[in-house]
Amino acid sequence: MKTLHVDVPGRGYPVMIGPGLVPSAGRLLAGLGWNSAPIIVTNRTVFDLHGDSLVRSLGPAFGTPRVIRIGDGERFKNHATLMRIYREMIGLHADRRSWILAFGGGVVGDIAGFAAATFMRGIRFVMVPTTLLAQIDSSVGGKVAINVPQGKNLVGAFHHPMAVLSDTDVLETLPGRELASGVYEIVKHAAIRSEPLLRYLEAHMGGILGCRTADMTHVVTESVRIKAGVVARDEREEHLRMILNFGHTVGHAFETATGYRRFKHGEAVAWGMVAALGFGRELGYLGADEIGRLLEVIRGVRRLPSLKGIGFAGLWRALARDKKFRSGDIRMVLLRGIGDAEVRDGIHPGQLRRFLRKFLACGGALDGDR
Amino acid sequence: MKTLHVDVPGRGYPVMIGPGLVPSAGRLLAGLGWNSAPIIVTNRTVFDLHGDSLVRSLGPAFGTPRVIRIGDGERFKNHATLMRIYREMIGLHADRRSWILAFGGGVVGDIAGFAAATFMRGIRFVMVPTTLLAQIDSSVGGKVAINVPQGKNLVGAFHHPMAVLSDTDVLETLPGRELASGVYEIVKHAAIRSEPLLRYLEAHMGGILGCRTADMTHVVTESVRIKAGVVARDEREEHLRMILNFGHTVGHAFETATGYRRFKHGEAVAWGMVAALGFGRELGYLGADEIGRLLEVIRGVRRLPSLKGIGFAGLWRALARDKKFRSGDIRMVLLRGIGDAEVRDGIHPGQLRRFLRKFLACGGALDGDR
Repeated sequence: MKTLHVDVPGRGYPVMIGPGLVPSAGRLLAGLGWNSAPIIVTNRTVFDLHGDSLVRSLGPAFGTPRVIRIGDGERFKNHATLMRIYREMIGLHADRRSWILAFGGGVVGDIAGFAAATFMRGIRFVMVPTTLLAQIDSSVGGKVAINVPQGKNLVGAFHHPMAVLSDTDVLETLPGRELASGVYEIVKHAAIRSEPLLRYLEAHMGGILGCRTADMTHVVTESVRIKAGVVARDEREEHLRMILNFGHTVGHAFETATGYRRFKHGEAVAWGMVAALGFGRELGYLGADEIGRLLEVIRGVRRLPSLKGIGFAGLWRALARDKKFRSGDIRMVLLRGIGDAEVRDGIHPGQLRRFLRKFLACGGALDGDR
Repeated sequence: MKTLHVDVPGRGYPVMIGPGLVPSAGRLLAGLGWNSAPIIVTNRTVFDLHGDSLVRSLGPAFGTPRVIRIGDGERFKNHATLMRIYREMIGLHADRRSWILAFGGGVVGDIAGFAAATFMRGIRFVMVPTTLLAQIDSSVGGKVAINVPQGKNLVGAFHHPMAVLSDTDVLETLPGRELASGVYEIVKHAAIRSEPLLRYLEAHMGGILGCRTADMTHVVTESVRIKAGVVARDEREEHLRMILNFGHTVGHAFETATGYRRFKHGEAVAWGMVAALGFGRELGYLGADEIGRLLEVIRGVRRLPSLKGIGFAGLWRALARDKKFRSGDIRMVLLRGIGDAEVRDGIHPGQLRRFLRKFLACGGALDGDR
């Protein structure tokens, strides 16, 4: 097991990464010094698979936890579910000393974390993320949120957990596309911040996709280290934190243009990274060798759903939802080198438009691409 | 105009207190350096009275503000109103750089502040409190919240404004009971923390109740200074902040026992303070002279609604809603002297029960009371 210490203003908290952490959760969390049992917020799928193990493990240190089950999926990350969580917490006589254990993927972490941020003006919570994406991305940085009908994550807070337990064993029960979707975000972390991590991905992709413990522990740890490092230096994302959006500008537009049905988030980000690499090359950012290495790693993860049928007009409309985009003040994260990202302002809309039109026409293949 | 600087972790903000601040709001807030117009969250009553003056004043520095009107009263401080605020903000294309100006009493400040705390994970807001209670109490300390069906303020956050403008002129349009309700909380601030403020209240009660500018500016300023001082030293109310609850334990029970219909909040607190004084005397806390001074000031504000018809059983039931009360771990704020409050743990339930039974039987008169 590896333990990282994440700093946040005024305090820090441990992120533990490795195999067997769910069945050891009670022992690992006993060190927090709390004596009441947590309120577990989870989804039915995760709890059916791993709930017994978690509850059994918590018993000796904390007694029997109460469990609030929410629906599985992004569409449950809304006010109705949040109100149900509050109601059930009040029914369980939760008070300011209660604590929440968020047990699930990004949706559970986001909504349980927002409930913890706002119940009685903020109570403590612990995250036990069960998807790769949640382990390396949403569990780090303190962002919690819910969706409203008008958009995703429009209501939220910054609320850091007291501890994160990322059990690499539970990733074995993830569907392959779900796992791959997380791996693309690890590629992103390597691309923006760490050439050594990219080298590791090049050498160990088979082990990672096979959930080999040592490989998975390593890449999750490095990913968390990278994200936590960026976040610690720039909690409110004034600038540095933006580099975490590498691949996300165009990636989000792919998701929107296909009604969030065709791509997993990580897959859309993978396509967004490919686009950002191609566009960056046009602007003279990155050499062909470095682009080749990154494309090779991205393609080595899994076959991406195709871009077929996505029209340029729809993609551009999705991009232009962003107010700053409309005003012509276009900003994208581009790579100067592997591990070296830059927030580039003042991108010329015409140039981006021409690039994306061609990118779609070629089905996402870049010039000179193998 | 007086300006206090309130410190909160990592920053500070000004609280400006005096006459004519609403018609000068644009000039006073221009110093914040923002160039977009605020989204004003207000209630219909306040906006009908003072909205034109505020909007006219903001125009030159910020352009025309947008206005979100909510219903007037505690029953509107709920999720339905909050969702409407979010929806209207999104309709107004609000983003992370938008700012909210909360223009109203405690309900407006609480819900607009909570919307600001959570919209896009937190945007800036300014408070222009228009009731005495909001000026001296809810606008200081960063607590924002909404009610849920199961209880008041159960969902909330800590989110400090960037500035507070407390215009003493607008208090002239307050109904007399509303004004008095705020004065009782000023008495509370004096009782727990400042004998000089009590002396001022003794000498100037007429001017205060008549909204004389110099008197009102002084007592609001001193009250804010006291509350801000307590809050700065103990933001999350682990201990010191509890002294602000002087009169509130029994006061809340009076409110609950009468279905929130008989008393204004400040009136219930006034009765709660009288009870705490009497009970404190039983425990040997305070001398008869000091109790006499405080009772005289409280009674000099306004005739309090009577306690008639409140049964002991109902009052005790209301007190016992508090879990710690039920467990016998009763805690109350008592005065050791004027300006010197103490959080007293381990109060004997039987003793408090006997005292309150007699207190109700005597209609709130204390032994030896004039």
